[in-house]
Amino acid sequence: MNKTRLEAFSDGVIAILITIMVLELQAPHGADFAALRPLLPIFLTYVLSFVMLGIYWNNHHHMLHLMERPTGSILWANLHLLFWLSLIPFVTSWMGENHSAAVPTAAYGIVGLGSAIAYTILQMRIIAVEGPRSRLATAVQADIKGKASLAMYAAAVGLAFVNQWFSDALYVELP
Amino acid sequence: MNKTRLEAFSDGVIAILITIMVLELQAPHGADFAALRPLLPIFLTYVLSFVMLGIYWNNHHHMLHLMERPTGSILWANLHLLFWLSLIPFVTSWMGENHSAAVPTAAYGIVGLGSAIAYTILQMRIIAVEGPRSRLATAVQADIKGKASLAMYAAAVGLAFVNQWFSDALYVELP
Amino acid sequence: MNKTRLEAFSDGVIAILITIMVLELQAPHGADFAALRPLLPIFLTYVLSFVMLGIYWNNHHHMLHLMERPTGSILWANLHLLFWLSLIPFVTSWMGENHSAAVPTAAYGIVGLGSAIAYTILQMRIIAVEGPRSRLATAVQADIKGKASLAMYAAAVGLAFVNQWFSDALYVELP
Amino acid sequence: MNKTRLEAFSDGVIAILITIMVLELQAPHGADFAALRPLLPIFLTYVLSFVMLGIYWNNHHHMLHLMERPTGSILWANLHLLFWLSLIPFVTSWMGENHSAAVPTAAYGIVGLGSAIAYTILQMRIIAVEGPRSRLATAVQADIKGKASLAMYAAAVGLAFVNQWFSDALYVELP
Repeated sequence: MNKTRLEAFSDGVIAILITIMVLELQAPHGADFAALRPLLPIFLTYVLSFVMLGIYWNNHHHMLHLMERPTGSILWANLHLLFWLSLIPFVTSWMGENHSAAVPTAAYGIVGLGSAIAYTILQMRIIAVEGPRSRLATAVQADIKGKASLAMYAAAVGLAFVNQWFSDALYVELP
Repeated sequence: MNKTRLEAFSDGVIAILITIMVLELQAPHGADFAALRPLLPIFLTYVLSFVMLGIYWNNHHHMLHLMERPTGSILWANLHLLFWLSLIPFVTSWMGENHSAAVPTAAYGIVGLGSAIAYTILQMRIIAVEGPRSRLATAVQADIKGKASLAMYAAAVGLAFVNQWFSDALYVELP
Repeated sequence: MNKTRLEAFSDGVIAILITIMVLELQAPHGADFAALRPLLPIFLTYVLSFVMLGIYWNNHHHMLHLMERPTGSILWANLHLLFWLSLIPFVTSWMGENHSAAVPTAAYGIVGLGSAIAYTILQMRIIAVEGPRSRLATAVQADIKGKASLAMYAAAVGLAFVNQWFSDALYVELP
Repeated sequence: MNKTRLEAFSDGVIAILITIMVLELQAPHGADFAALRPLLPIFLTYVLSFVMLGIYWNNHHHMLHLMERPTGSILWANLHLLFWLSLIPFVTSWMGENHSAAVPTAAYGIVGLGSAIAYTILQMRIIAVEGPRSRLATAVQADIKGKASLAMYAAAVGLAFVNQWFSDALYVELP
């Protein structure tokens, strides 16, 4: 198998996901600044998700750069990550339209948590294949930040039911 | 002709197909978990189609890796496969919205069958060009699974008119 | 400048165009075969446009393969071609929904003609840059088919006002 | 880090942006030329934005060609540019539907200005990393046109409130 096609396919999917979210930003009917106001929460959620997908692309780029070559199981772990990322536009749009509601905010956190877990699985798969002395294993040895981010997403899902502003604060922190 | 562009174009088309299906998952109007319930069959069909396209991308990746270089007829056999795959979002959306109906379930099977046939034609085209001793020909010699999957899709199309749950079970098995 | 990025960008645009047309094929509300009937002209136009874009991708692939390296003017001639191709989903959808109408059929022909002219301009630009002894110039020396196709698109635009079936026949012939 | 993936991802995003704008051009209900007339301002805005994104792709292509290799900060400066470009379809659609209105015209200018600033930041980041004797630094030394374009976008935003035709004229000039 070759690494280039795995990178190209992942780049394609992430590029499309980061771009189709903008389709949610539908041109308002009015033509003044007031017409933009209802779009503000949708816009802010868009910015948040753009940054989140940007971080994933960035980290994915680094991780695959350190990987030697993909195996079948790495390919599937990668598709599993892309599946979770593909749900980001949906929860972005739901949270954007229902900004002060607990369940959409929690749903955003669940997809964030799922993506973080899928990313960790992909990392573990590559290390399992390439051994504990591989370049990637050495690089992530002290990846405390990664583990902290898993815990924080889990917290955000719970806090959404207390007050969704706690969750929003965590989402903005997490990048 | 060069193989890289054929791979890049196929990657692009499959990446877009796997991603635009998520546009069907429109954010519900309500903001509680109950609002998600009507989306469940659409979501499950999305998962099924995501896995199916993932498998095609995976297999396509392996097949082209073994291929030496494309000819004109291989290019067209590849476009023919991409055409069938491009219908997956349509049948996904139709079956997702009419889950207990026979005809959409059968339509899903017809597109699955068409894709499997197109994949087989592409494989046969490459082997016809590169000869029976080529790397691909050796690799697929005993591809009983491929032929079985053709038969099962054909069965699923018929069974949809008896009871669509039989077909659903086959679709989930087929990956 | 490098040729790879020009190819990758063109592949990206054509892959997206060939794929977003399928978004026009919206899942019908009914769940029987009769529900598919109104989709038939849209589906047939989709097939026609898929083949047309497939041919352009195929020819573009060959032409750029013979090109040495792009200049600024070649880049713009290529963008000009992509612009015309980007109108294909629009006319596909218009003609698909108004199948027996003269103006949409003529509009389809105008976009087809524009694309063919833009393709010819790109070819002429590359030959102007690389000289009459370049590989591309030698290959297209006797490109009578290309010139015939320009004439036929022009005819199809006119014939649409006589009877759109003449035009449809020409469009199907042209690939 | 490697330059190829940065280019491929940017190509993907720009290719998608330049293409999804055409989804705004929805097939009219009527089937005569009169039905096309309300689409004219949307079409003209589409052409303008297509050219604008084409210029960005073109310039981006040149700039990255001169760059040695990306760092983390260059990656983020690039994502920042892609973010501004991703807003072009939104303002295109808003200005296209409200052609004689001041605020959408100004919004178009703000996104144009933001994109131009983001492009300048990316250029400055690369030069800061690679030093004043790098190939890129030498090439842009006398980039008066770039600075003029910043000033003109700022002017267009202001003029939109006087008369949006001034702004339109500037937008058409700017490429």
